[in-house]
Amino acid sequence: MENFTQNVLSRLNCKDQRTKFILTKLISHLHDFIHDVKPTEKEFFKAIDFLTRTGQTCNDKRQEFILLSDVLGASMFIDAINHAINNNATDSTVKGPFHAKAKMMNHGDNIANGPEAETGEQTVIYGQVTDENGIPIENALADVWQSNDTGFYDVQDEHQPEMNLRGIFTTDVKGKFWFKTIKPAPYPVPTDGPVGEILRAMGCHPMRPAHIHFMITAEGYETLITHLFVKGDPYLDSDAVFGVKDSLIVDFIPDHSKEKATALDFRIPFYVITYNFRLKQKNSL
Amino acid sequence: MENFTQNVLSRLNCKDQRTKFILTKLISHLHDFIHDVKPTEKEFFKAIDFLTRTGQTCNDKRQEFILLSDVLGASMFIDAINHAINNNATDSTVKGPFHAKAKMMNHGDNIANGPEAETGEQTVIYGQVTDENGIPIENALADVWQSNDTGFYDVQDEHQPEMNLRGIFTTDVKGKFWFKTIKPAPYPVPTDGPVGEILRAMGCHPMRPAHIHFMITAEGYETLITHLFVKGDPYLDSDAVFGVKDSLIVDFIPDHSKEKATALDFRIPFYVITYNFRLKQKNSL
Repeated sequence: MENFTQNVLSRLNCKDQRTKFILTKLISHLHDFIHDVKPTEKEFFKAIDFLTRTGQTCNDKRQEFILLSDVLGASMFIDAINHAINNNATDSTVKGPFHAKAKMMNHGDNIANGPEAETGEQTVIYGQVTDENGIPIENALADVWQSNDTGFYDVQDEHQPEMNLRGIFTTDVKGKFWFKTIKPAPYPVPTDGPVGEILRAMGCHPMRPAHIHFMITAEGYETLITHLFVKGDPYLDSDAVFGVKDSLIVDFIPDHSKEKATALDFRIPFYVITYNFRLKQKNSL
Repeated sequence: MENFTQNVLSRLNCKDQRTKFILTKLISHLHDFIHDVKPTEKEFFKAIDFLTRTGQTCNDKRQEFILLSDVLGASMFIDAINHAINNNATDSTVKGPFHAKAKMMNHGDNIANGPEAETGEQTVIYGQVTDENGIPIENALADVWQSNDTGFYDVQDEHQPEMNLRGIFTTDVKGKFWFKTIKPAPYPVPTDGPVGEILRAMGCHPMRPAHIHFMITAEGYETLITHLFVKGDPYLDSDAVFGVKDSLIVDFIPDHSKEKATALDFRIPFYVITYNFRLKQKNSL
């Protein structure tokens, strides 16, 4: 059997050394997996069918292979490898499959423009983007997206207007930006496709703890892709995609001030969160 | 990092022990692969895109994931595991992606009914199906399929009639069947999809040595899926899918007898092959 794997590897005649290294490892680990599992032919065809349907479930609004990578812990493992040395920079987490085009918005705008504007728990987010030493970064872009109060993104939900609960904000001279939204809800990853089947086979629930996505870009800095999670969420310890890091859990602090609510055009109580996003300089360690 | 993999594995709560074993090995080997390769995020998204397009290239006439498994040596490795103890039974090899529905035919029928009936090298195949001890098996079904003399299967080639170069034959009381065809040609596996990309990255040619597919079924016996390869083919040592086994290489013996040719309604010379397919009894070792 080892001879067989060696025979396959001996064929490799790659021009590029990185390609050769990746393909050597791919073939070696794939054969090791087969050697350990000894799949029957029925299991082999089941695996082929699973992979085929996973590819065919993907479309411009759904990426089932990324979701598969997420629930197998592969995405967060790759994230950890690529962001191993963080110093003081903010931790990253999975991008997830729901990022989409958003429009530029102004400080103080409300990204909640669907039915959730009435039903959701109103929230104001004060963000600041700095470098690792706390020096403000002006003109950074904060691309924000989140689910509504029932756990659905606009692209999954015909009741939400287009580009609902999405927006891109530019930081001011102090690195600051702020916007209004609603508190997100925990939700299941899509379970009507192949990934749902594997989650059921794993005996794992499909829930993700409530979170807001941020992708922050600034010239000269590494792009930060992360979430802020809602403290107290019941799924923080069992996120279906292993995305939670303690440093990303934030307290949604309730505020009962009628005066502040009026200024924000909010009901009381509303929630306030503040967060400092610290970016890593490009090519720094 | 090991803690991360252990955390993922500790979630598994499978009802079925075989499922748990397979998923444990899948996650472990996948994480080991990631640990060794340390993919960049760009490489990760390239891999996701590759897998997605592989799934989307599949249709009712094309199975790109089986082809991927074939060129990585996985299919033949699984074949070897499932047919490790062969005793005197005939060796198996990959099924390949070109099996399709065929019709029942009579002994002596010609399965070549397209342009290749004129251009191909005429061949008569005398088969016998027996058990491992050489005892004939009556009423076995031999499902046969092959490419034409330019290396194309009917499903790939609009110039061939439907079900061309395919047929199913029933063995007689002596376990025998025979039919007429043409000598197949070596051909490339499809290279216009993702598997073509990986073959180019591997620096490997896409050719398969010329062969005829057989799937032989008989009540009480394990189904035999195999090929007969043409002795002397230039690609026998470098089959793109690693399918060649020495015991499956047969001599296409030229025959110049005008009398025999007339009886077969053949031109001279024509080729003759004889082969004894030995089936394994079900549940025997």
